[in-house]
Amino acid sequence: MDNARFVDRLHARIAAVGSPTCIGLDPVIERIPEDVRTKSSSDVEAVEQFCLGVIDATCEHASAFKPQSACFERFGSAGVAVLERVTSHARSAGVPVVLDAKRGDIGISAAHYAEAVKATGADSVTVNAYLGPSTVEPYLEAGLGVFVLVRTSNPDSDAVQSNELSSGGTVGEMMASHVARLGANRLGESGMSDVGAVVGLTKSADGEALRGLMPRQYFLVPGYGAQGGGAEDLRPLLCEQGGVLVNASRSVLYPERGENERWQDAVARAAKAMHTDLASVMS
Amino acid sequence: MDNARFVDRLHARIAAVGSPTCIGLDPVIERIPEDVRTKSSSDVEAVEQFCLGVIDATCEHASAFKPQSACFERFGSAGVAVLERVTSHARSAGVPVVLDAKRGDIGISAAHYAEAVKATGADSVTVNAYLGPSTVEPYLEAGLGVFVLVRTSNPDSDAVQSNELSSGGTVGEMMASHVARLGANRLGESGMSDVGAVVGLTKSADGEALRGLMPRQYFLVPGYGAQGGGAEDLRPLLCEQGGVLVNASRSVLYPERGENERWQDAVARAAKAMHTDLASVMS
Repeated sequence: MDNARFVDRLHARIAAVGSPTCIGLDPVIERIPEDVRTKSSSDVEAVEQFCLGVIDATCEHASAFKPQSACFERFGSAGVAVLERVTSHARSAGVPVVLDAKRGDIGISAAHYAEAVKATGADSVTVNAYLGPSTVEPYLEAGLGVFVLVRTSNPDSDAVQSNELSSGGTVGEMMASHVARLGANRLGESGMSDVGAVVGLTKSADGEALRGLMPRQYFLVPGYGAQGGGAEDLRPLLCEQGGVLVNASRSVLYPERGENERWQDAVARAAKAMHTDLASVMS
Repeated sequence: MDNARFVDRLHARIAAVGSPTCIGLDPVIERIPEDVRTKSSSDVEAVEQFCLGVIDATCEHASAFKPQSACFERFGSAGVAVLERVTSHARSAGVPVVLDAKRGDIGISAAHYAEAVKATGADSVTVNAYLGPSTVEPYLEAGLGVFVLVRTSNPDSDAVQSNELSSGGTVGEMMASHVARLGANRLGESGMSDVGAVVGLTKSADGEALRGLMPRQYFLVPGYGAQGGGAEDLRPLLCEQGGVLVNASRSVLYPERGENERWQDAVARAAKAMHTDLASVMS
């Protein structure tokens, strides 16, 4: 299975876990539990201990982990070293890793970014293709899965992605067509493509049209939990194979803790609740 | 001057140097001179020695250096540490640094990317705003200059950026309008804005319309030299203040060497030729 395409490994993991739960590793120092921070000699060490602890507490419920590259890069080279160890820890737990790096460049620079993603140990990466479709190919050639930004969950994404084209459809739908074309000859045994798309749960009104344009794409779906999207909003995004990977970060990483509850127990409880909620929609 | 806005420091540097020459630091290991590689114990050390040598050889002609983040990130955390030292070397030579990272994220992640850029010591950064205008603000709040990708020099950028909108104009022009709006209250004493734009020299047919939409923007202009654009193509991009920063990477980093010519002499010669060529158009 280790030699299988990314999309098939992801698909198999979702089937084995029984829910398309992706846990976003977005460590923000001010929100890391006091217990972890007092035991650490620096902020970047606290970030590492927190992420390793989250992985241990949640990996049985997780179909993927999604580290947010920015949260590590903010500490410079020391933070990138932590990202490498965190990714490696998730992979040894048998969980695929999507590096949320939103990279976008061309030619040799894109090939170098693909090398950089592989250096972290991640299986796949989020990619911004505003520069054009050729932004995407170097990652595929390096054996990585990709999720191209199509319709993002932030409120002001409309100012770019909802603009109507004279040829029909929106900017987001134009990007979706590029994604479908790029992914057409990258299909795995699951019937899905190594080229996926980011489609926010808070934009699920656009979901049916986007699923129509991208029938073979796994959708990486941010916006669940703290950003306001619920499991019911998922329905328009589904395809026959399921085809969604739903991410939550804040609601799992920073849950309310019961009195005397260990932080890892609270995180595990939040991950399990998300797992159950999503499993109900998928079945 | 150190406390001045980025755009004013850049503007003053261009005036002092007499030419809007930006030297792209895109070190590709296979192209680094043999003399540097044999003296280095690893690829990443060769990258460092090469970049420091290029800065020393060209800083008198350079209005800015533009390290390509991917070329350093490909070496993981060790590469990011080299980027930090290279950036610091350029800054100590008194030259502004544009980190070509093409980052694009929102909220706290964008704020963390801004921290990451500052951790490298760079003054400004290239930003991809496909996610929406709010992608840009965190960098400005951190005191950085930005260059937003509007019309990029790669051939297949047309597949995204040249699409016509039903409301008029292209996708690239829609992005230009966001840039102008974001930059309107970030003007320096030079009359130019801390919010600039990336406009490729190979797309200079679109240049006049883009300059009309973005009168106060510095244009970071890739595509000169190896990518085929010449100094004459610059004219439609100019504004009263000049308002362009023209980048070359390959043609300066990897020039043909005369017999027995030291590699740094060849690089200095290429930088000087570019400086002279661009100065003639600006005057």
